[in-house]
Amino acid sequence: MDTIGVGLIGCGTVGQGVVSLMLERRDRLSRKVAAGIELRHVIDKDLRARRDVDIPKGMLSDDLACLLKDDQTRIAIELVGGTTVAKDIVLQCLEAGKDVVTANKALLAHHGRELYAAARRAGRCIAFEASCGGGIPLVESIRRGLIANEVQALYGIVNGTCNYILTQMVAGGKTYASALADAKAKGYAEADETLDVSGADSAHKLAILAGIAFGIDVDFDRITVEGIQAIDLTDLKAGQELGYVCKLLAIGQRRKNNTFSLRVHPAFIRRSHPLANVNRSFNAVSVYGDAVGHTLFYGRGAGRMPTASAVVADVVDVAIGNAGRTFEQLRLLNDVCEPVAYMPIEDVEKRYYFRLMVPDRPGVFARIAHVFGAHDISLSAINQHEPEASAESESVPVVVTTHVAREGNVRQALAEVSSLGVVTCPPVCIRVVEEHEEF
Amino acid sequence: MDTIGVGLIGCGTVGQGVVSLMLERRDRLSRKVAAGIELRHVIDKDLRARRDVDIPKGMLSDDLACLLKDDQTRIAIELVGGTTVAKDIVLQCLEAGKDVVTANKALLAHHGRELYAAARRAGRCIAFEASCGGGIPLVESIRRGLIANEVQALYGIVNGTCNYILTQMVAGGKTYASALADAKAKGYAEADETLDVSGADSAHKLAILAGIAFGIDVDFDRITVEGIQAIDLTDLKAGQELGYVCKLLAIGQRRKNNTFSLRVHPAFIRRSHPLANVNRSFNAVSVYGDAVGHTLFYGRGAGRMPTASAVVADVVDVAIGNAGRTFEQLRLLNDVCEPVAYMPIEDVEKRYYFRLMVPDRPGVFARIAHVFGAHDISLSAINQHEPEASAESESVPVVVTTHVAREGNVRQALAEVSSLGVVTCPPVCIRVVEEHEEF
Repeated sequence: MDTIGVGLIGCGTVGQGVVSLMLERRDRLSRKVAAGIELRHVIDKDLRARRDVDIPKGMLSDDLACLLKDDQTRIAIELVGGTTVAKDIVLQCLEAGKDVVTANKALLAHHGRELYAAARRAGRCIAFEASCGGGIPLVESIRRGLIANEVQALYGIVNGTCNYILTQMVAGGKTYASALADAKAKGYAEADETLDVSGADSAHKLAILAGIAFGIDVDFDRITVEGIQAIDLTDLKAGQELGYVCKLLAIGQRRKNNTFSLRVHPAFIRRSHPLANVNRSFNAVSVYGDAVGHTLFYGRGAGRMPTASAVVADVVDVAIGNAGRTFEQLRLLNDVCEPVAYMPIEDVEKRYYFRLMVPDRPGVFARIAHVFGAHDISLSAINQHEPEASAESESVPVVVTTHVAREGNVRQALAEVSSLGVVTCPPVCIRVVEEHEEF
Repeated sequence: MDTIGVGLIGCGTVGQGVVSLMLERRDRLSRKVAAGIELRHVIDKDLRARRDVDIPKGMLSDDLACLLKDDQTRIAIELVGGTTVAKDIVLQCLEAGKDVVTANKALLAHHGRELYAAARRAGRCIAFEASCGGGIPLVESIRRGLIANEVQALYGIVNGTCNYILTQMVAGGKTYASALADAKAKGYAEADETLDVSGADSAHKLAILAGIAFGIDVDFDRITVEGIQAIDLTDLKAGQELGYVCKLLAIGQRRKNNTFSLRVHPAFIRRSHPLANVNRSFNAVSVYGDAVGHTLFYGRGAGRMPTASAVVADVVDVAIGNAGRTFEQLRLLNDVCEPVAYMPIEDVEKRYYFRLMVPDRPGVFARIAHVFGAHDISLSAINQHEPEASAESESVPVVVTTHVAREGNVRQALAEVSSLGVVTCPPVCIRVVEEHEEF
């Protein structure tokens, strides 16, 4: 039997994990997989970096051409990251006749359509299990395992950095800044945390997962994205009193008239919600299908070995020919799916949590409540603690939750409340997400 | 492109779900899958049964030969159940050149080796996603998604009937008999519940899942199996006080010296355990890999449409050629794996919960404690409530939990305690299962 050669491009954290699985622990693959699979090239621009794995002499190079011109290397693993150099590398690999395995969610979220089309022209495939949910077999579960379903909705905690920060804030009573510093110290956040905490990374994953779940050509720019940077410990504690935990959720919903709502934002969910116990850097995604009902997939969404586990699973899938058939036969990728209509975020209806800082004077809350009423927003609970005797501030926090209301109305109402001249700082608004009804 | 014909054998609950997905909701498959897939035969011994789906004239027959001799029918779905007729049907289908999709865990647990070998001889494959975990894409997640791992352990709640009963006992304060009656009334338990409540059904699924997770030829008869029939509400309540919930767990562990511990039994797990919140008829399986760490898969483990969802996913996987390659290329099925050594249940070490009914007299508990000490069993907590004033019984329940102890010692100690002549009924013993350590 032919041995299938593999080349790795980008030998950073995950890349070293892949080398470890494909060289140091190679025996398990050769025990489990009939096809021979052999790592032949490791391409990295930095030949002198300290690495935790031994790369045999002659395998490491900074020249992509070594990989491209080697006919025995039929699979290229792109772990460079980013959307510029990586895109060029993927296109070169496809043109050179290599199948591509990638963990690059930003690349696929922004340029999926173009790259999938290029792969099809070249008669090759792109496999991307590691792009979402790290080691969780999420991509294949959704696109192959749930293929008989019309997926109704998906709800995911898909960014471990944000989940670690939110968990630490609640568990350790830490401010956002302090929890972020802790996440950096522990290696759960990058030096520049923006991509994670802004929600952009979650949105990249949502674009990919919603695409294969709904079979639609997702336009990344139509995803509404809010991050966790503005989350205040005060609100997490107030939410806790009400029975909620706060998670950064990636949400995809099939709405009426075949429109879709795709959004990433912090959300209060009840403690009994299926995602409420997903803590620390773990990820989980709930998918609701019209036949299967509720399914949930949980595991480590990032990290060297979990992500390498998914990369190598894809390498095997490509090597035995399955990834190619999946790519070719299932019409679930951007380039062969239709673009769709999106439900504007203003039309989405849900419940809300507000915290308003108001002066402790008669009649003030009545004026605020009047604004909500005028915008068809019905209050579900109001909670104003008596000010502490020692409190010097003239304003007190009033926590309000609403019944289901239209987001457009909520935005208008909050703008009006702000302009009343009675709240002492901008109102805090956190969306409440209820457990999805199964069938 | 050729259309691939499919024949269904057994049109009961799940079979009707498959017909619904393949006929009534056929459009979604033809939208998502390039290959044409067409249901051509429904074979059932009962032609007159009332069914919830319309089967076109000419498609329904009680003669398997209609399916076998139709060359355009290349995939046979076996949903007959049981291990006798079903086995014969699967062998006939394979010999007639059909690939087989089955949901029959009992058949594969008992006769997997023989059937897989027969399929290989015929150059065909057997796909069985629906055999474990109903609609959860569990089989493919483990064998393909986690293939780069050496799996360390798996822990599953894989029988919805038992989980429903145990959940109802705790939530509704019901006795076992009353919760069972409720499960039957609601359709969560069969008229004859034995296969479910005895743990046998869970053991069937464990045999299949442990086989593909560890890559071993599981001998079904070496699985230790205990069911939930003897579970008493008293113990569920006592466990609750201690912070435990009781679940019927299917456990597979890779132990030292490459031995394996495979067992199904009721277990107390802490409320923070990843499986503690799996309630009602839901299933979930935790798999721990040495690269990926902890992964968990959750969903509906039974029922018409969830199971049909998995069956149809397999049909697609067979139709596009992937199931065949998986079957051929991955060495994870009984007929191509080695049998292994099993750790005897007596050698397994864990914590225990005991409830002993003892007379309320001085010195009695000291004698019992002495027996435990003599068998190297160290007590972790002892809980004896003061008898209620109104209690007429002369004996009081003493609830004990132990530190980690060897099961063989526990069995001997309990036998000795019973023979002391002081306990008024046989001691209750429930194993405590701690959360698996990830790496």
